[in-house]
Amino acid sequence: MDFAPDAVTVEYTGRAQRFLDELVYPAEAVLEEQLAATPHEWGARPVVRELQAAASERGLWNLFLPGVLTTLQYAPVAELTGRSPRLAPVAMNCAAPDTGNMELLHEFGTQEQKDEWLEPLLDAEIRSAFCMTEPDVASSDASQIATRIVRDGDEYVVTGRKWWSTGAMSPDCALLVVMGATDPTAARHRRQSMVLVPRSAPGVRIVRPLTVFGYDDRDHGGHAEIVFDDVRVPVANLLAGEGEGFAIAQARLGPGRIHHCMRALGMAERAMDLVVERATSRVAFGRPLADQGVVREWVAESRLQIEALRLLVLKTAWLMDTVGNRAAMTEIQAIKIAVPRAVQQILDRAIQLFGAAGLSGDQPLAEMFAAARALRLADGPDEVHLASLGRAQLHDERGRDDDRNAL
Amino acid sequence: MDFAPDAVTVEYTGRAQRFLDELVYPAEAVLEEQLAATPHEWGARPVVRELQAAASERGLWNLFLPGVLTTLQYAPVAELTGRSPRLAPVAMNCAAPDTGNMELLHEFGTQEQKDEWLEPLLDAEIRSAFCMTEPDVASSDASQIATRIVRDGDEYVVTGRKWWSTGAMSPDCALLVVMGATDPTAARHRRQSMVLVPRSAPGVRIVRPLTVFGYDDRDHGGHAEIVFDDVRVPVANLLAGEGEGFAIAQARLGPGRIHHCMRALGMAERAMDLVVERATSRVAFGRPLADQGVVREWVAESRLQIEALRLLVLKTAWLMDTVGNRAAMTEIQAIKIAVPRAVQQILDRAIQLFGAAGLSGDQPLAEMFAAARALRLADGPDEVHLASLGRAQLHDERGRDDDRNAL
Amino acid sequence: MDFAPDAVTVEYTGRAQRFLDELVYPAEAVLEEQLAATPHEWGARPVVRELQAAASERGLWNLFLPGVLTTLQYAPVAELTGRSPRLAPVAMNCAAPDTGNMELLHEFGTQEQKDEWLEPLLDAEIRSAFCMTEPDVASSDASQIATRIVRDGDEYVVTGRKWWSTGAMSPDCALLVVMGATDPTAARHRRQSMVLVPRSAPGVRIVRPLTVFGYDDRDHGGHAEIVFDDVRVPVANLLAGEGEGFAIAQARLGPGRIHHCMRALGMAERAMDLVVERATSRVAFGRPLADQGVVREWVAESRLQIEALRLLVLKTAWLMDTVGNRAAMTEIQAIKIAVPRAVQQILDRAIQLFGAAGLSGDQPLAEMFAAARALRLADGPDEVHLASLGRAQLHDERGRDDDRNAL
Amino acid sequence: MDFAPDAVTVEYTGRAQRFLDELVYPAEAVLEEQLAATPHEWGARPVVRELQAAASERGLWNLFLPGVLTTLQYAPVAELTGRSPRLAPVAMNCAAPDTGNMELLHEFGTQEQKDEWLEPLLDAEIRSAFCMTEPDVASSDASQIATRIVRDGDEYVVTGRKWWSTGAMSPDCALLVVMGATDPTAARHRRQSMVLVPRSAPGVRIVRPLTVFGYDDRDHGGHAEIVFDDVRVPVANLLAGEGEGFAIAQARLGPGRIHHCMRALGMAERAMDLVVERATSRVAFGRPLADQGVVREWVAESRLQIEALRLLVLKTAWLMDTVGNRAAMTEIQAIKIAVPRAVQQILDRAIQLFGAAGLSGDQPLAEMFAAARALRLADGPDEVHLASLGRAQLHDERGRDDDRNAL
Repeated sequence: MDFAPDAVTVEYTGRAQRFLDELVYPAEAVLEEQLAATPHEWGARPVVRELQAAASERGLWNLFLPGVLTTLQYAPVAELTGRSPRLAPVAMNCAAPDTGNMELLHEFGTQEQKDEWLEPLLDAEIRSAFCMTEPDVASSDASQIATRIVRDGDEYVVTGRKWWSTGAMSPDCALLVVMGATDPTAARHRRQSMVLVPRSAPGVRIVRPLTVFGYDDRDHGGHAEIVFDDVRVPVANLLAGEGEGFAIAQARLGPGRIHHCMRALGMAERAMDLVVERATSRVAFGRPLADQGVVREWVAESRLQIEALRLLVLKTAWLMDTVGNRAAMTEIQAIKIAVPRAVQQILDRAIQLFGAAGLSGDQPLAEMFAAARALRLADGPDEVHLASLGRAQLHDERGRDDDRNAL
Repeated sequence: MDFAPDAVTVEYTGRAQRFLDELVYPAEAVLEEQLAATPHEWGARPVVRELQAAASERGLWNLFLPGVLTTLQYAPVAELTGRSPRLAPVAMNCAAPDTGNMELLHEFGTQEQKDEWLEPLLDAEIRSAFCMTEPDVASSDASQIATRIVRDGDEYVVTGRKWWSTGAMSPDCALLVVMGATDPTAARHRRQSMVLVPRSAPGVRIVRPLTVFGYDDRDHGGHAEIVFDDVRVPVANLLAGEGEGFAIAQARLGPGRIHHCMRALGMAERAMDLVVERATSRVAFGRPLADQGVVREWVAESRLQIEALRLLVLKTAWLMDTVGNRAAMTEIQAIKIAVPRAVQQILDRAIQLFGAAGLSGDQPLAEMFAAARALRLADGPDEVHLASLGRAQLHDERGRDDDRNAL
Repeated sequence: MDFAPDAVTVEYTGRAQRFLDELVYPAEAVLEEQLAATPHEWGARPVVRELQAAASERGLWNLFLPGVLTTLQYAPVAELTGRSPRLAPVAMNCAAPDTGNMELLHEFGTQEQKDEWLEPLLDAEIRSAFCMTEPDVASSDASQIATRIVRDGDEYVVTGRKWWSTGAMSPDCALLVVMGATDPTAARHRRQSMVLVPRSAPGVRIVRPLTVFGYDDRDHGGHAEIVFDDVRVPVANLLAGEGEGFAIAQARLGPGRIHHCMRALGMAERAMDLVVERATSRVAFGRPLADQGVVREWVAESRLQIEALRLLVLKTAWLMDTVGNRAAMTEIQAIKIAVPRAVQQILDRAIQLFGAAGLSGDQPLAEMFAAARALRLADGPDEVHLASLGRAQLHDERGRDDDRNAL
Repeated sequence: MDFAPDAVTVEYTGRAQRFLDELVYPAEAVLEEQLAATPHEWGARPVVRELQAAASERGLWNLFLPGVLTTLQYAPVAELTGRSPRLAPVAMNCAAPDTGNMELLHEFGTQEQKDEWLEPLLDAEIRSAFCMTEPDVASSDASQIATRIVRDGDEYVVTGRKWWSTGAMSPDCALLVVMGATDPTAARHRRQSMVLVPRSAPGVRIVRPLTVFGYDDRDHGGHAEIVFDDVRVPVANLLAGEGEGFAIAQARLGPGRIHHCMRALGMAERAMDLVVERATSRVAFGRPLADQGVVREWVAESRLQIEALRLLVLKTAWLMDTVGNRAAMTEIQAIKIAVPRAVQQILDRAIQLFGAAGLSGDQPLAEMFAAARALRLADGPDEVHLASLGRAQLHDERGRDDDRNAL
């Protein structure tokens, strides 16, 4: 057992840290200005393009892609991007949901699909959305997906309603990866398939944006409700085989979850920096906040949580690298449950220390809080994972992302 | 000891409940539409005016005002208004910050001040804001208030910067009640005074709106940052005497806090209604959510918290009525700490049950969460009250809203 | 609604407080000495007899008995007895399990049963135990009770194994109230009956004492495991009718639970007194503990919990008096869940403040902690009640102590 | 970074696991019988001697000693011993307080001291106690130690009162390591020295045993209060130099804390085994407990806590091995805070699942709970460490076990 990072990790985290310090943090205020200047526009602002160019030049591009770094090497880099969650991941072309979609295409796409969609995604020329969740059914139960994908000659006809399609409000979003039922009579996990639907296809209707708390996340392409009304795509747009939608969604989720957790820890570390700065500089009743009340205890508790959970995430990454995503399922569930809620709590304490400023847009805390809170629901609510993890312990089985689990 | 409500309470809560059922709940969707139609307008929408007319007609108007109902009688009415927090309080002219300002004018205003400001406020012809918190100092420490109110002949000259002036973005807001230092060399709690400043006075500059978790609360007049740049008002605009600003702020806060707590409990009850409806109707994995996982436990825990804390609030109200606000200070602090955080937790559980819908504007949960979260900071952060309450217990004294306490 | 206690309550709580101050607290050290002098003896020590005589003389005797005080009037008296839980309840002949057994006899006993058992119990001449829980089945599921009560001519023959028969180790214990199945084929809640079994009956074998943490509670008669081996009692020893065992157990539990809760709050108040005394007198690092770290916050949180929960208990008492035990079932469940765990937490904090002394017999804290911890299991574990309460909320029914509930 | 244990660790944990399975677990019932047969005897029972012989033969002897295994290699072995905390540590001669005393002698003892005390301790021929805590002062503040060690010619004269001297009730305990002030006027951390006092020395008076939640831990030598009344020892009995008592106590505490944490995790794992067995075999209301209520969630939460905290402990061990105990101080504080309280909570849940049996001596849970609870106070209460850790974070310093910290 050895807790020292290897040379590759040291190199990449150093590079990412410098990128943050030199370019990303200063760009945060620029993004705010650009957003304020164009309040109704969806999609990335100019400052993002500039950062992307710089990241690419600095060798900080597409690091999430399998084969570039190990999961264990990528983890601390992903954590660093979480410190500026609206800019750093997208700047390095490592932001969800594009990463998951690129992984799908990379692993399961045909050469034609890769040429058409993966290449421009890897170059950040287009963006993509993942259309799985539906408003009318409990999305933690994948077997309830009601969207239909029906073969008609050389085409598939897609009909249904999706929501929380993150990124799909942006005009840059060219690709929708859509999950639907091709055979509703098949076994529960063989019913679904995935097809690649151009956002510009006739019958695709972007209904409205959704908000998370009061945030519309418009620079990130928002969260769309979309109606698919007899949308036709060539059969060549099927991703993997018919009936394999559930299986490849699972494959997509393992890395996605660990990336979310790493970035969430980065948000917590950002909050810690802010808290330390505030607590040592702000004075009330004649003394800095750092010397008052429960501030020390909050900081200590937050530090404890971060340190223990980071190790759990890193061990999970190591397991994914050494025994595979499937064998690491229990640990992936564990961090999926434990990290977002801890980060939510750390951010809640940070907000409390900042007072009303912490609730506002003057600090990144409230927005990061909303993001951490949303993670407790993304890819299945905590409770589904908790019950699955408990069942696995009680019945001496590995946690399985099966029909009782969330997609 | 008797836990049965009296006849007046039964009468008014019945009336308020009918008002909610018949007019307020249906108006919620209307408000959303009117807001969507005028995204950049600040202030009440037409539907609010209609509700106000109806409330006035039904004898549900200005019930907060001392002398109309006892605190104990008003408490369950205020709770009911919390079930539709954006509409019911304002519909009944019982919304903060106007209520606190009206109480101040009612108790400490001169006849001229009452004629000019109180009457139109009681008629909801104008709105008002309370300008105390400042961006540059810890607002829990009132002695740090930097805004200056300097006498110059027959006028006071007000100079400073305030923020979180709720309501002040609205063009309906005609009055700013401003706290500032008239004598920085006086004893800590004799330094401040309050003056009445017309929002239209030269030198008043509304700098920008602030957001709470992304919400701008624009129908309610938002939360403004305001600069006072040599603003001149007649000396007759002084409220109470010079040096009495702190004392009358305290007087304002007791009732304000209990009203906040009652409305927060109403938000919790609204969430319970929504949760029960959702859990019994939504199906996943073949069974209603109500029969799964920890849903029963969540509902039970939420019910426990609500019942116990409501009794504590009601007892506090009874104490205010029987021994006075000052003698009830310990209990007021207790509910100020305990209620908002419990309601935040209840809303968090409700959001979790609703999944992503709970985060969005399709349900009132995320917005109520933001409101409850903000209450943990309003009128001083929990921690200041907690420390004060603990000190009082340890040293056998009543909780005092003194220099160690929040305004 | 009125939170002021009535004159009877004021009179009795004053009397009980004086009894505590003048006689009970000073007797605690005496009890310790008498216990140390006779380490292997089970049952009350001489000091208890003296206190009983004094309590009787002061009109503080058998106050739990229906008709003496209302539940609401008795509640604060019971709370006071909880401040010295090993002495005050037994001194006033208000200690479990005798109180529950006396209530059963009072309500359901024949005149002969009353003459033989109730009178000496009311005079504290004998003690009794309640034999329901069994080692081999989940005791929260009353339908699983395996002990058989078989009629044979004019006698019932009792066969089975019970444990946690509190008080039964004491030679003063003359009566065992035994629950067993008379008709295992009947409907679930008509299977059981209760019979009165003299502890001296042939076939009654006291197997061993059990401990709670490391405490044997020997002055209170301990907790016995008992084998009933073909024990014969006259049919006249049946309490109420055949098949009514479950129903009368339920009747016994409502008041029992509220008494437990009140005494638990008394334990918490005792802990608060000790904490305040310690925190203000003990010095570390140059300052009293009261001025350090999280002590203030602990005291404030404990105070909050006590005040809110006491009101919930009092309201429950009021409901029992006004609408009956059955209609108050939801509230009884609520306090059964909420009070013991809060008191456990309050005691845990108190122990932490006292350091190692808090763990030892030098302070009553560890022993009270064990008692509060045990309450979370007595009469059914919290979780059974929590699920029942949640179910009632979700399905709009009153909490029912039915087959899913604990006895 | 590599999470795989090395070959030595695999070898020793395998060996320890077999020792547990083959000899220790079966010996638990034997210990109970031997204790029941000799209720008033202090010290190890025969079964312990037998286990010690077997452990020594199996190469599981004195593994705690510096140089035998690295801290990281020893950690999982120590965890395994925690699964049977009353037998396994002492069987392998790895039980506190002897381990700490042996470390002190090993590191700071003269050859004569080693010959006289260390050798028989390493052979388990004698036992020892550590006498630091005093009843009259807050023991977290080492500068308050009142015991005096005064040089008088060739002797030191020890005068004072100690308590919580674990092991000192046993007649096998031959050595008392006593901390006292040699120069009360020196700088705070140069006042104290340690001397080696034979338990048989004139003037040593064992006053009484103390209990922890009713447990006297008599097989382990109990916890003694001891008066030192002009006890004379040769100056050669000074351990290290005059004024070095504080420094060497610190050196002793680092490893001690990590060992405590590892064993506590072993207790948690034992509880998990018991819980899984119980939940899958015990039936209530027609289904195994494993399928009911919150059992799955409890098991999952406990697993989460154990996995994350074990990694934190292992990383701490790695730091101690690579950068030294002093540099690992922050992490040592972190685990000292986080592990015992988590284990207490895990045990509390386990007790709840077991019902009343969990409170009794029929299961090891209540006794392990008491041990975990005591750890939150041993070597300084959590709160002192929490404040110190928070201060270090806020002021960018490593946690220091200085005058504000606990011994």
